[in-house]
Amino acid sequence: MSAKKINRRNFIKKSALVGASTAFLSSRKLGASQKTSNLRLGIIGTGLRGQWISNLCLKRRDVDIKAICDIDSGMINNTLNIIKKAGGKPPDVYKNGQHDFLNLLQRDDLDAVYIATPWEWHHPMAVEAMKQGMHVGVECPAALKVSELWDLVNTSEKTNKHCMLMENVCYRRDMMAVLNMVRKGLFGELLHCQGGYQHDLRDVKFNNGRQPYGGGVEFNNKGFSEAKWRTQHSVDRNGDLYPTHGVGPISAMLNINRGNRFLHMTSTSSQSRGLHKHIVDQGGIHHQNADINFNLGDIVTSVIKCSNGQTIVLSHDTSSPRPYSLNFRVQGTEGLWMVDNNSIYIQGLSKEEHQWESDAEYLKKYDHPIWKKYENQAAGSGHGGMDFFILNAFIEPLKKGLAPPIDVYDAASMSVISPLSEKSIKLGSAPVKFPDFTRGKWKKNQPVFGLNENY
Amino acid sequence: MSAKKINRRNFIKKSALVGASTAFLSSRKLGASQKTSNLRLGIIGTGLRGQWISNLCLKRRDVDIKAICDIDSGMINNTLNIIKKAGGKPPDVYKNGQHDFLNLLQRDDLDAVYIATPWEWHHPMAVEAMKQGMHVGVECPAALKVSELWDLVNTSEKTNKHCMLMENVCYRRDMMAVLNMVRKGLFGELLHCQGGYQHDLRDVKFNNGRQPYGGGVEFNNKGFSEAKWRTQHSVDRNGDLYPTHGVGPISAMLNINRGNRFLHMTSTSSQSRGLHKHIVDQGGIHHQNADINFNLGDIVTSVIKCSNGQTIVLSHDTSSPRPYSLNFRVQGTEGLWMVDNNSIYIQGLSKEEHQWESDAEYLKKYDHPIWKKYENQAAGSGHGGMDFFILNAFIEPLKKGLAPPIDVYDAASMSVISPLSEKSIKLGSAPVKFPDFTRGKWKKNQPVFGLNENY
Repeated sequence: MSAKKINRRNFIKKSALVGASTAFLSSRKLGASQKTSNLRLGIIGTGLRGQWISNLCLKRRDVDIKAICDIDSGMINNTLNIIKKAGGKPPDVYKNGQHDFLNLLQRDDLDAVYIATPWEWHHPMAVEAMKQGMHVGVECPAALKVSELWDLVNTSEKTNKHCMLMENVCYRRDMMAVLNMVRKGLFGELLHCQGGYQHDLRDVKFNNGRQPYGGGVEFNNKGFSEAKWRTQHSVDRNGDLYPTHGVGPISAMLNINRGNRFLHMTSTSSQSRGLHKHIVDQGGIHHQNADINFNLGDIVTSVIKCSNGQTIVLSHDTSSPRPYSLNFRVQGTEGLWMVDNNSIYIQGLSKEEHQWESDAEYLKKYDHPIWKKYENQAAGSGHGGMDFFILNAFIEPLKKGLAPPIDVYDAASMSVISPLSEKSIKLGSAPVKFPDFTRGKWKKNQPVFGLNENY
Repeated sequence: MSAKKINRRNFIKKSALVGASTAFLSSRKLGASQKTSNLRLGIIGTGLRGQWISNLCLKRRDVDIKAICDIDSGMINNTLNIIKKAGGKPPDVYKNGQHDFLNLLQRDDLDAVYIATPWEWHHPMAVEAMKQGMHVGVECPAALKVSELWDLVNTSEKTNKHCMLMENVCYRRDMMAVLNMVRKGLFGELLHCQGGYQHDLRDVKFNNGRQPYGGGVEFNNKGFSEAKWRTQHSVDRNGDLYPTHGVGPISAMLNINRGNRFLHMTSTSSQSRGLHKHIVDQGGIHHQNADINFNLGDIVTSVIKCSNGQTIVLSHDTSSPRPYSLNFRVQGTEGLWMVDNNSIYIQGLSKEEHQWESDAEYLKKYDHPIWKKYENQAAGSGHGGMDFFILNAFIEPLKKGLAPPIDVYDAASMSVISPLSEKSIKLGSAPVKFPDFTRGKWKKNQPVFGLNENY
């Protein structure tokens, strides 16, 4: 097809119009999708993450990448090469500036789009895609503001289009085994969970403009890959900027939005030292970036209270030298599991009273059925196999017109932690309430994550 | 001496009078203490803890236990036996009811008292002891209410008597080694610390009335030892009931009250399940205690913000099956240490980037000088040697008329976490401000803990 070209001004006009025509577009495109067995996909954002997911799509027989979009020709070319090497059909390309994605979304041959752009673009792209009749898989976070998250929910409800959060850690093998243990009652009634994003990102946030990781202390225009856009969030914002890796698996265990929900949260931030120090240590005190004031505190701790009583501690810790850890702990009335010491203690089961034992046997015994089933396909799919599962969970249900296991309500309740956290910190750690994005449906919704035999 | 007997009514009258005569009493008794080289000690509370400390005092040559006090004749007799066995001189005994401690405090031959009674008695006993011209060593917490803690501070200032918090974990060998590392700059500038009291106390809170640990689900009048008084706090209160083990060593590392201070705190509590469940599991659903409603949430998480920017996470977790852990983590701009995996990572020092290494070599290398010095004396002194050090730190400075290394301001700022935590939980995790018990002196006070060659 040849897409109509849309510039920014037209986009704004158009967006206002689209709402009215949503119902028509939805049914038209849903009809189109039913004619084909393969999922016809557009990829918006072909940076390193988009390229990797493209690569995984090409390994499947049930996905056709029809169109790709990015503002960076280099990234587009890399993606085309990946597709070519895999013997895929060349997709149409949208690379004419920041709003060319709107032209991609004008196509009538797409069932869904996968969005892996800078965070601030997730919301406008996802909303517009749903309005244009496409399902959405969006990288984390789904949006940055409370109002934007409501917009996603409302748009999904109005258009009957799904918006899945592509939170791969939900599918981490140990987390799914622990979820399995939770459901089998090993921990009794859950009381408390911990998670977080504890990842030294200094060499992600800064590089030399030629390589994705380190080698310099440049960012924004002078940076490469994530340093181009991700670092500025640490300049502008103070909060838990990236909560979903930590809270994703925990949400499933606690049945969030499905019998339980997040009620309120406090966040408290340490001083900001790491990013400035890194610039000075690596680039010298006279480097121009040494004058930049970073708002993001080095360690941000958030505590969530759930309606069923449980507490969750989330840690955001990305500016300091430290081993990677997502800080997981899952605790109930019968025992607990902790990731940092790879240990578990279950009353009556563990051999010695009050003594940790290795979690290895438990993780093996309670390995989740879908991990057993897809172990071979998942191997080498990235991030320890998680990426196979998250992509599979996006594609499989959509092929049948079914809802994804991590839906727009999950996307909203997990992503909203960031803006709520920023608000709490601004208010001196005041508790802030979670919106109920389900509008009460959480009371009757049933758990779905990890309960399908395929995803 | 023969002590005047005082009943409760006289105590109240007398307390009002004592304030006026404080200066006289102080100087009189301080004078008395200067005449002897041995510290003349009264022990109020001769339960298991008091007996153990008595035992440690008897191993020293510089302490004379002149008087002991308890309401329980059995505990008094046990203590007398311990003293007899050790060849100590029999102390005078005060065992005539809850207010006989007032008679002990009328003695003019005591330099100090050590208080190891139920928590609610710490405040009135410590205040009265100082008013009667004695220094105080008080078990944790020093008091239960904000007003009581101010009372301790004000009384100490007015009487020139010291009130030391007997927080033994400050002297734990690993914590002192880590303190040493902090001071040597290994972690860079501190950013974040964690601590807590994660100890399955179900068999402390409940027993069969004949043994201190377990064997039944009785407490209060039908319980024995701590179950007699400690458990009721879990019925009445919801908060971090026992913060000082976790926050004690961290306070020293962060120079709290000495260049830094606690600013505000939030607390969030999980649902309460463990204690009720334990009663039902062990005693059956028809046991009369199965009807009791416990206020204490099973996991209480508090987050403290410090004036120098750091954050502290404290966990209180005493009602669930779990291995013992004080949850320590100490993190700075150069690396971090974590107790639960016995691991450390220091940028540039650790062999592999982003990989934990065992903390064993570090703890050995940075073993604190006083641990090296007193290692042999500390062996077998209880709680891994900590009890030798905390008692030593109480006695040594007092013998020379010097201030203890954990003073009344530390006692107050650590103990106040409990009432602030209760308040925050009542207010839906609202941030609550710490009083500045030093009235601004924290800005100029210099660190002292662990800097004396003897204590």
